[in-house]
Amino acid sequence: MRTSAHLSSKATSDTPDIRALWQKDKDHFIHPFTDFSVFHERGCDLITDSQGIHVQDAHGKRFIDGIAGLWCVNVGHGRREIGEAMAEQATRMAYFSTFNNLSNAPAAELAAKLAELAPAHLNHVFYSCGGSAANDATIRLVHYYFNRLGKPDKKRILSRTNAYHGTTYLAATLTGIVSNNWAFDTLEHLVTHLSEANCYRRPEGMSESEYCDHLVKELEDTIARIGADNIAAFIAEPIMGAGGVLVAPPRYHQRMQAVCRANEILYIADEVVTGFGRLGHFFASEAVFDTQPDIINCAKGLSSGYAPLGATLISDELYEVLSTPQGPGGVLSTGFTYSGHPVSCAAALKNIEIMEREAICENVLDVGPYLEERLSSLSHHATVGDVRGSRFMMCLENVADKATKALLPVEARVGDRVAFEAQQRGLIIRPVGHLNIVSPPLIWTRGVVDEVVSILDDALSATTRSLAADGFL
Amino acid sequence: MRTSAHLSSKATSDTPDIRALWQKDKDHFIHPFTDFSVFHERGCDLITDSQGIHVQDAHGKRFIDGIAGLWCVNVGHGRREIGEAMAEQATRMAYFSTFNNLSNAPAAELAAKLAELAPAHLNHVFYSCGGSAANDATIRLVHYYFNRLGKPDKKRILSRTNAYHGTTYLAATLTGIVSNNWAFDTLEHLVTHLSEANCYRRPEGMSESEYCDHLVKELEDTIARIGADNIAAFIAEPIMGAGGVLVAPPRYHQRMQAVCRANEILYIADEVVTGFGRLGHFFASEAVFDTQPDIINCAKGLSSGYAPLGATLISDELYEVLSTPQGPGGVLSTGFTYSGHPVSCAAALKNIEIMEREAICENVLDVGPYLEERLSSLSHHATVGDVRGSRFMMCLENVADKATKALLPVEARVGDRVAFEAQQRGLIIRPVGHLNIVSPPLIWTRGVVDEVVSILDDALSATTRSLAADGFL
Repeated sequence: MRTSAHLSSKATSDTPDIRALWQKDKDHFIHPFTDFSVFHERGCDLITDSQGIHVQDAHGKRFIDGIAGLWCVNVGHGRREIGEAMAEQATRMAYFSTFNNLSNAPAAELAAKLAELAPAHLNHVFYSCGGSAANDATIRLVHYYFNRLGKPDKKRILSRTNAYHGTTYLAATLTGIVSNNWAFDTLEHLVTHLSEANCYRRPEGMSESEYCDHLVKELEDTIARIGADNIAAFIAEPIMGAGGVLVAPPRYHQRMQAVCRANEILYIADEVVTGFGRLGHFFASEAVFDTQPDIINCAKGLSSGYAPLGATLISDELYEVLSTPQGPGGVLSTGFTYSGHPVSCAAALKNIEIMEREAICENVLDVGPYLEERLSSLSHHATVGDVRGSRFMMCLENVADKATKALLPVEARVGDRVAFEAQQRGLIIRPVGHLNIVSPPLIWTRGVVDEVVSILDDALSATTRSLAADGFL
Repeated sequence: MRTSAHLSSKATSDTPDIRALWQKDKDHFIHPFTDFSVFHERGCDLITDSQGIHVQDAHGKRFIDGIAGLWCVNVGHGRREIGEAMAEQATRMAYFSTFNNLSNAPAAELAAKLAELAPAHLNHVFYSCGGSAANDATIRLVHYYFNRLGKPDKKRILSRTNAYHGTTYLAATLTGIVSNNWAFDTLEHLVTHLSEANCYRRPEGMSESEYCDHLVKELEDTIARIGADNIAAFIAEPIMGAGGVLVAPPRYHQRMQAVCRANEILYIADEVVTGFGRLGHFFASEAVFDTQPDIINCAKGLSSGYAPLGATLISDELYEVLSTPQGPGGVLSTGFTYSGHPVSCAAALKNIEIMEREAICENVLDVGPYLEERLSSLSHHATVGDVRGSRFMMCLENVADKATKALLPVEARVGDRVAFEAQQRGLIIRPVGHLNIVSPPLIWTRGVVDEVVSILDDALSATTRSLAADGFL
């Protein structure tokens, strides 16, 4: 079986230029999250063009982008006005340091805009270039905060199994997807992983409400065991993304936050995926889940992926401590060369302008339920155990047996099969183990949803046939 | 005294627009490496425009940029063709994931170009968005490498006091500037800091050659103490940057590398500052210092700061291990959403094209010695203890007493004073404690050097007067 990533390249259709580029990639680019057994054999397919909801490979084959690049391209591809805003800023003033009491106009404008969009108490922005660095910086600042408060023992971070928070050394330690850290080292004693909130695979016989009680109790027990004085923060994605688009039971986040508050444990929302419209709001924490995090991290949709950018939004209360001078000449010694990069911030400002002008959040609120409903109709397939998610953040869980929820063997590579069949039919979705993630640009219409669901319907049928042919069903 | 960062803003000259922007910045942007006692009082000055060797603040005051943004803008400001290349790529295909056997044209082209520019054995590129993340990813990959080789104890990293390697949790741990980690936590037991190579402040009575012996012996002794089996790598900037532009004694790097080689300790060159022409070559390790690092990190000049980008260049030998499949379906589980970002890579390709077309490295080789010579002429000032560096990476060390090399008290803020006086006269240089760093765009001519040295001459005279007036001299 060819794996999902092999879109449409055929040696016979390669022009010399494409072949040369393909060779350069294969010889010199160490790709993230790539299976080298496949890469050594056939390298990469090149995505060269894009427009709106589509991307196109080097051979001119067009695909509906069902993953928004990688939960990123929220306003869709090929937005000339974002490119022009970037070019204008790059030509006018591409870069100057924001250290030492210097700043630039787009970084200042964007910080104010983010404070306006975020929950009322989050008014202070620490910039980075993406989600990993945002989460890494956040934990550093949280530790600094408690050091400054004279609580140097309050350092442990509570995360969750199957959480994804990035791949710096610290961010990878926060991450709870075990396979992600295979043969990598992580920090010891910094992070304790609670259970993820997985309604589909919750303990047998437990209602969702009882399951929520169970998860909240696990937090309380963990605090009792470790001691609130030793715990700095709890970090959670409002809906767990790469870990399987897991929607927690109702009131889970509110209740987790209440326990944290009662124990002076900071609540950090990693909105790298959920932020900027994917759930129909610029930020989901308060609007969807009724929580008021002390810190919200965002990236991806912040610039719709047009330029690398991340931002950590910090509460007034924390800022007061972080911004208290340490003494004469003392500085807050952290941040990046590219914190508040003028061109990246200009891209984000234009991106937000487009989102507001075109009412993109409203489109998600309108079309999202239709996407949920139509994808749910795929449950009739023998291998579709669960269709879950919310609005433009959806996932299919493939199983061998719907009644027992038993998985197919890893060698069946079911996620890859479904993605491959979809791509053969002109749709890119993301395989993650036995899952398939659908996280499109936020401009899909009902018509596009119908087309996508029709492709997936065929792809799932073909997958069932191929699994049967290979003896897996 | 007003500090150096206060360029030219006067409340009276503020337009309402500037004032509003200034207020947004002050209310919402948490600046890196900023003294909040100053920030709370008067916020930031806005750099709004730029062209060539100049930048301009919001009030229209123009400055010669003596720091290239922050060791970044190597080809100079306002390069329209870089902006246009970014806009073209952003419009054509701004972003798609490079995970899972997908790629894009600029990332593939740039990887091949970097392999061509780097020493012969460095042919594999791992992308990030800046120096901190590049260094962080490097150590993660080095650990992974030794885990894969079945040497899980080989993990300690040797760095140096006063080294600067960034501010992720891991990069901050590599960093050896003590004040950088004030009230921040760092990783325990991961890093051992050797002494920096500081010729100016080497032990009394030691020749440079004896000092080199001394430093090499410290490495040998450290290896003997910790055990080569427990040490993964040595990381060093070819010329230490933020730690004070410290040029090591002749043959230091070669000898350090030889000791590392003999002990199967990897040699990592952090060329975030020295790379891309600052010392007259795309990479300084081999061309200037005759070393062959196992890994070279670069960022900053790679894109001349026009877009966030970092790259880790990895040897064939390491790549062979890193790219050995872990087993069926196993992936190298690290990397960033924005690894190989098409727009950032397009900016870097255009930047390199400009550097080659305009022979910018050759300009550094030509004008660099003149900059060294002319800056050295400032040694006649009472407070200038040392003028050091190489080519376009220079530093003045200010002292109270040239004979004893004694420093002025911290409260004198001599670095800030010199920078302030220079800025009053139209030149931005960087204060770092008692030092002043000059790291300009690589397009300075002899004429600009003369103008800069003339400004610095006046600024140093004014500083001497102000120090005397305040009772520090």
